[in-house]
Amino acid sequence: MKRLFAPVLMSMASIAAADTIVATGDLGLVVERAEGSLLLVDQSERAAIGRIEGLGDLSHASLVYSPDERFAFVFGRDGGLSKVDIVEQEVVARVMQAGNSIGGAISDDGTLVAVSNYEPGGVRVFDTETLEMVADIPTGSKTIGLVDAPGRRFVFTTWDEGETWIADFSAGDPAITKVVGMGANPYDALITSDGRTYITGLFGQDGLTALDLWDATPEPTPVLPGYGRGQEDLPVYKMPHLEGWAKAAGEFVLPAVGHHQVLWVDATTLEETGRTDTHGQPVFAMARPDGRQVWVNFAHPLNDTIQVIDTVSKEIVHEFKPGPAVLHMEFTPRGHEVWISVRDAGKVMIYDTQTFEKLREVEADSPSGIFFTARAHRTGL
Amino acid sequence: MKRLFAPVLMSMASIAAADTIVATGDLGLVVERAEGSLLLVDQSERAAIGRIEGLGDLSHASLVYSPDERFAFVFGRDGGLSKVDIVEQEVVARVMQAGNSIGGAISDDGTLVAVSNYEPGGVRVFDTETLEMVADIPTGSKTIGLVDAPGRRFVFTTWDEGETWIADFSAGDPAITKVVGMGANPYDALITSDGRTYITGLFGQDGLTALDLWDATPEPTPVLPGYGRGQEDLPVYKMPHLEGWAKAAGEFVLPAVGHHQVLWVDATTLEETGRTDTHGQPVFAMARPDGRQVWVNFAHPLNDTIQVIDTVSKEIVHEFKPGPAVLHMEFTPRGHEVWISVRDAGKVMIYDTQTFEKLREVEADSPSGIFFTARAHRTGL
Repeated sequence: MKRLFAPVLMSMASIAAADTIVATGDLGLVVERAEGSLLLVDQSERAAIGRIEGLGDLSHASLVYSPDERFAFVFGRDGGLSKVDIVEQEVVARVMQAGNSIGGAISDDGTLVAVSNYEPGGVRVFDTETLEMVADIPTGSKTIGLVDAPGRRFVFTTWDEGETWIADFSAGDPAITKVVGMGANPYDALITSDGRTYITGLFGQDGLTALDLWDATPEPTPVLPGYGRGQEDLPVYKMPHLEGWAKAAGEFVLPAVGHHQVLWVDATTLEETGRTDTHGQPVFAMARPDGRQVWVNFAHPLNDTIQVIDTVSKEIVHEFKPGPAVLHMEFTPRGHEVWISVRDAGKVMIYDTQTFEKLREVEADSPSGIFFTARAHRTGL
Repeated sequence: MKRLFAPVLMSMASIAAADTIVATGDLGLVVERAEGSLLLVDQSERAAIGRIEGLGDLSHASLVYSPDERFAFVFGRDGGLSKVDIVEQEVVARVMQAGNSIGGAISDDGTLVAVSNYEPGGVRVFDTETLEMVADIPTGSKTIGLVDAPGRRFVFTTWDEGETWIADFSAGDPAITKVVGMGANPYDALITSDGRTYITGLFGQDGLTALDLWDATPEPTPVLPGYGRGQEDLPVYKMPHLEGWAKAAGEFVLPAVGHHQVLWVDATTLEETGRTDTHGQPVFAMARPDGRQVWVNFAHPLNDTIQVIDTVSKEIVHEFKPGPAVLHMEFTPRGHEVWISVRDAGKVMIYDTQTFEKLREVEADSPSGIFFTARAHRTGL
């Protein structure tokens, strides 16, 4: 566990003796974007158990967890970085670290939290105890696709120059390696759960670019360079999310851009291995933790529907309509259930992934991202 | 979180209000086999923070965690099944469920805990709240290799007949599927982290046998059927552990039987892809969570040594001697550190996996198995 050391930056008046023991291994936070609050949920109880307020602009917010699964670090679009204690259900520290930010990551040892910023462009890194800034890495560009990698490293990419930077904090001050030639206007990226492969999606050209981070001098490798991203020029905010990319049974499954399809790519050769036609333009294609199923949601106006694809047959085995504006999905760590944010229904809905039966609805205020604490133990989440 | 409901089977006198919040996400338990106790450790603090006693015979003991990472279910060799609260640091329930048992597993939904027994031979399944028995599955044989699989299933194998049984609890009463022809005297088994492939090691013949659990009717597939397990007939207790099998970069890495080697097997084709000569007869070959390194310990009398193998080059990149009787290793969930039980030194030693620097020694009484709470979120652990 990590203890709270004084002084912290905000109110901590009320550390009363806990009268109920809170074990956090099966908890989670749901982003309530309209009100800037987080709903604390309990997977085992299939229930909401609290709400934490005062987090600022939470549109497109994301968060990561401390290794002890007690603290969440919340990245707001407004540049706010907040440290939330989910046991005490309160914000224990908060800094406005930039004007416009887009996501963050926590180092493998849990001591550093990094935020990528549009304005000023770059990455800032903070001590997870105090939220004091320990490194400022300006890139001169909007910076996207920030992830953690093993060895106290962060990896991120510049929109303007198409460079991926690897910042290695293993010796204290960061050692920076720059990889050029990632392609035109990378808009997002992911790292595989083993921390080996970093893949950026490109806005300015067809396809994606991969890096093998195990290589001593990683070289950009094109992925699906001519798959045909569709006729329409989509705005950035309509590009599919990459965080949701699935790796299942040795293949990546990714949402096509501008097509009603998901694409299958061999995880070793990075060659296309198939396409599955879908109900709409996919937003997230997320693998159940065992990799046997991929659950897909879709862009407006087809965003009331989910399709489930079997990864062996690559065929759709189930389709249903949870309700209006399905924004996000999160599986329980071992995959037996899935929680789904249905924004315009004001509910999070819980389904059995074997039977597809709806098990429970939980009231939530414009729910979007769902983040279970088990992410604390995963690379890149 | 899961709450404790009264009545429980043992003393619970002392649920005092916790004056310190215990976040359990980065805790772990070390089996102290000589005294039948568990040492509670904190990964972030690199320290022992408590001891839980009264667990009976803990030789070859193992344990699993509840989804909320608060409770451990401990499987003693003497047939004892104990439920331990790591927040309150006490045994909250205990049953003697058989005369001689060998390992257990917890269902993906956290509601069932199963134990495999030599005497009487079979598997018994208990409610995780109360430890009341909910199913008794006699097999008429010593039963080994019990694991959980997705979909509220348990998989286990009989020593005498060489059958693997799949017990599906998704509809309440277990539906049992039997696969015959797994080979002569399976002595242990593992399931891959995706829950797809179940592999048994064979004592009575060369090689191993795999099952694809995604197949509607899984068929036994021989693995390395003629690799040559060495000239000596080893006793069962000297066979390598299978729990420790690594999967790294698309290959399984497994300890050879009767050779000073680890064997590499393609995870898709199950064909041998290489061998690496080692210091001694390997006992555990464990992959760092990112799969880039495999750490190997060895059988007596060479059990003072560890070798680290790079999974890309398949070459040994580091060798050192932690001390006498290295019994087990456990990586932090994201792999930056490793904890190593050195029984006859009376210590658990903690190393940085990038620099190989020793970071700390923790006193422990004849330490053997180390189990971090992040196992709660994994299949087959």
